[in-house]
Amino acid sequence: MSTPILKQAPTHEYSRIIGIGAYRPEVIVTNDDVCQWIDSSDEWIRQRTGIVTRHRAPAGVSVIDMAEGAAREALKQAGIEASQLGAVIVSTVTHPFATPSAAAALTDRLGATPAPAFDISAACAGYCYGIAQADALVRSGAAEYVLVVGAEKLSDVIDNHERTISFLLGDGAGAVVIGPSETPGIAPSVWGSDGSKWNAIGMTHSLDDVRKLGETARHSDESDDQAIIEATQDIWPTLRQDGQTVFRWAVWEMAKVAQQALDSAGIEATDLAAFVPHQANMRIIDEMVKKLKLPETVVVARDIADAGNTSAASIPLATHRLLQENPGLSGGLALQIGFGAGLVFGAQVVVLP
Amino acid sequence: MSTPILKQAPTHEYSRIIGIGAYRPEVIVTNDDVCQWIDSSDEWIRQRTGIVTRHRAPAGVSVIDMAEGAAREALKQAGIEASQLGAVIVSTVTHPFATPSAAAALTDRLGATPAPAFDISAACAGYCYGIAQADALVRSGAAEYVLVVGAEKLSDVIDNHERTISFLLGDGAGAVVIGPSETPGIAPSVWGSDGSKWNAIGMTHSLDDVRKLGETARHSDESDDQAIIEATQDIWPTLRQDGQTVFRWAVWEMAKVAQQALDSAGIEATDLAAFVPHQANMRIIDEMVKKLKLPETVVVARDIADAGNTSAASIPLATHRLLQENPGLSGGLALQIGFGAGLVFGAQVVVLP
Repeated sequence: MSTPILKQAPTHEYSRIIGIGAYRPEVIVTNDDVCQWIDSSDEWIRQRTGIVTRHRAPAGVSVIDMAEGAAREALKQAGIEASQLGAVIVSTVTHPFATPSAAAALTDRLGATPAPAFDISAACAGYCYGIAQADALVRSGAAEYVLVVGAEKLSDVIDNHERTISFLLGDGAGAVVIGPSETPGIAPSVWGSDGSKWNAIGMTHSLDDVRKLGETARHSDESDDQAIIEATQDIWPTLRQDGQTVFRWAVWEMAKVAQQALDSAGIEATDLAAFVPHQANMRIIDEMVKKLKLPETVVVARDIADAGNTSAASIPLATHRLLQENPGLSGGLALQIGFGAGLVFGAQVVVLP
Repeated sequence: MSTPILKQAPTHEYSRIIGIGAYRPEVIVTNDDVCQWIDSSDEWIRQRTGIVTRHRAPAGVSVIDMAEGAAREALKQAGIEASQLGAVIVSTVTHPFATPSAAAALTDRLGATPAPAFDISAACAGYCYGIAQADALVRSGAAEYVLVVGAEKLSDVIDNHERTISFLLGDGAGAVVIGPSETPGIAPSVWGSDGSKWNAIGMTHSLDDVRKLGETARHSDESDDQAIIEATQDIWPTLRQDGQTVFRWAVWEMAKVAQQALDSAGIEATDLAAFVPHQANMRIIDEMVKKLKLPETVVVARDIADAGNTSAASIPLATHRLLQENPGLSGGLALQIGFGAGLVFGAQVVVLP
């Protein structure tokens, strides 16, 4: 028997971002609020991080709720129906269920069933990773329109009393729709990882450790119950980072990655309309602007001042705001770069919607 | 200023699977072992599910360890170096850290740094979702070689005393390398979701509920400590399913999806060398074989008898075994279909490595 040749789907030559949406939860946490929990000051936090406030979601608002808010706006701006989506990608590390995905619930809520739906875990690079995948899916013909959402409720996975990362973080969601284009709208992604720094940002403990400690307590007759409750709480997994390592890596290595993304796109810094780095720290943003020698004509996203670091949501949130404040940027080129726990990074030049 | 045209990466016309690997952990759990925990019998379990044993990983073996075992074999068979990988995708729902991803650690261990690395959450459809993405990444030029791993330590997220799903599940990992091909090696994926059945398979509770209960206990002066320990354990999130709903959906809807995958590939059931469905239940496999009217010449994967249901790992594990037992299948066409929590599904016809 001769093996028949498998058919292939028709491809699209190019893709682009055709709509963007944002969801910013309503609770505002100021630096003074933060200083109830850690010994610091509004002035110190502003100087060292550039953060003035961060948004946080109340107890009843989930990652899926925030993703839905951002997605609805992105679909509306894109001018397509949810039923036209060929894939739904949610980038998140804070969906509080091992399974099913946030994306499957979101897809149903939007009326996009039966679109394929999955979550991706790539931390603060997750949005740029999602764009790389969406571009590949559209151009290879696997989907016509792809929804990419970065959504995080980081307030659920922090310990307000620790001071390496918790005070930096906010909640929120940003979303874009990627679709076919007659001209190139997404340049090749420069994305990667350095797992040798896997411990530089991450959770204090494994979930499995918490479960095992609880099981031991339950089956112990002579346990000091209050001590076990304390111990279980003490090992509840929350986010930590080695701030020095991450800061140095971000400033030195990420400026190089951003330059590679310009080179891959075949453009110069002077061709850019905007620069939208991950909103991790204002000093990292300033250093990258210097190292890339960005001219003053390039608008730089500094959403971190009001939003804090929202991980996978930070780039679409910052892009959404730039476009609201500067509608003339639409159609211009933006360099975006995400980087975070893994360590992982992703950068690409895109045409702004 | 006129906006310059963005460069695009050179594309590959086709992709295919070029290597496969498996990791089966050493602990064997028999039906008699299972019947220490639930009121059942070896005979009943065999009749209703086809499962005789399942492999489980001991305490010291992680999702990343199993993924590494499978990946090393896949790379060896593919005949490429880890440094040639352009992306590493780990499909898992049992990595016990919210972040960083299992993929970032795996990439470093394999010596594949700085390849982009991310985890995906699409439950038992996760391997087929990974193949759909890898195919798109290779053909669109985003990567030359992509490692796709399905790796699960489900024994960490079950309650051995419950009887909707726990006794079905096993641990393990399977991996493939996807690369460029001169002929079509992966047909268009038929993948999707039905989030209206989001509750049909999933975790009993949100992680956030456990954390909040523990925090309340810690700050309570008059708490009944042992009762709180019990309560915290009672809401520890473990897997459950509505078996009837899932069984009916799998038998009726997934046979249609499998047929659509044949149609998308432009082939008939008689063109197949093998059928590799997700190993969820032998009766589902038998029903699908009947509904698809597969001729007896098609070899059907029935790895579930020894391996149980290993979620994202089940299809590559079953494929690996088929090829070991029937080396003549190499180069033939296989129809593979995954389905599970979300609900989500993914199917495609592939050329066997």
